[in-house]
Amino acid sequence: MKYNVEVIVSFKKGVLDPQSAAVSGAIASLGYDNIVNLTISKKFNFQISGSTRDIVEEQVDNLCRKLLANPVIENYHYSIWEEK
Amino acid sequence: MKYNVEVIVSFKKGVLDPQSAAVSGAIASLGYDNIVNLTISKKFNFQISGSTRDIVEEQVDNLCRKLLANPVIENYHYSIWEEK
Repeated sequence: MKYNVEVIVSFKKGVLDPQSAAVSGAIASLGYDNIVNLTISKKFNFQISGSTRDIVEEQVDNLCRKLLANPVIENYHYSIWEEK
Repeated sequence: MKYNVEVIVSFKKGVLDPQSAAVSGAIASLGYDNIVNLTISKKFNFQISGSTRDIVEEQVDNLCRKLLANPVIENYHYSIWEEK
């Protein structure tokens, strides 16, 4: 079975995100004073094949913890849907 | 009125994405041979206040073209929803 997967990786609350700070500064310098609470996340999309959804889910979680996210400073969540 | 905005910025088809290539290589070296078509996008979330939705939409589009995306190599799309 083939599945489509989307993984969103974002900084945990309280962790300083230099990129968001830089972009927020640039936004202000462009004259926008009506934009707040900017956050930046990474979005991974890929296809994975596996015999069952449970096996695929376990592999995706494993991949997130080992490679796609840094569990110390980042949160991750994923969606898995079967490819029609 | 306050609006929540989500902007997704991704490489245009055909543009080499070194980050995706590197992550795909790392995935293979972890022993996953069942994962294909990996793409990585940036997801921006922020709040913006404005008198009308049209004005807000125009500002968001402007922001995407000027700052959040590089129109030469990246695509962007955004969703805007009113904050309840």
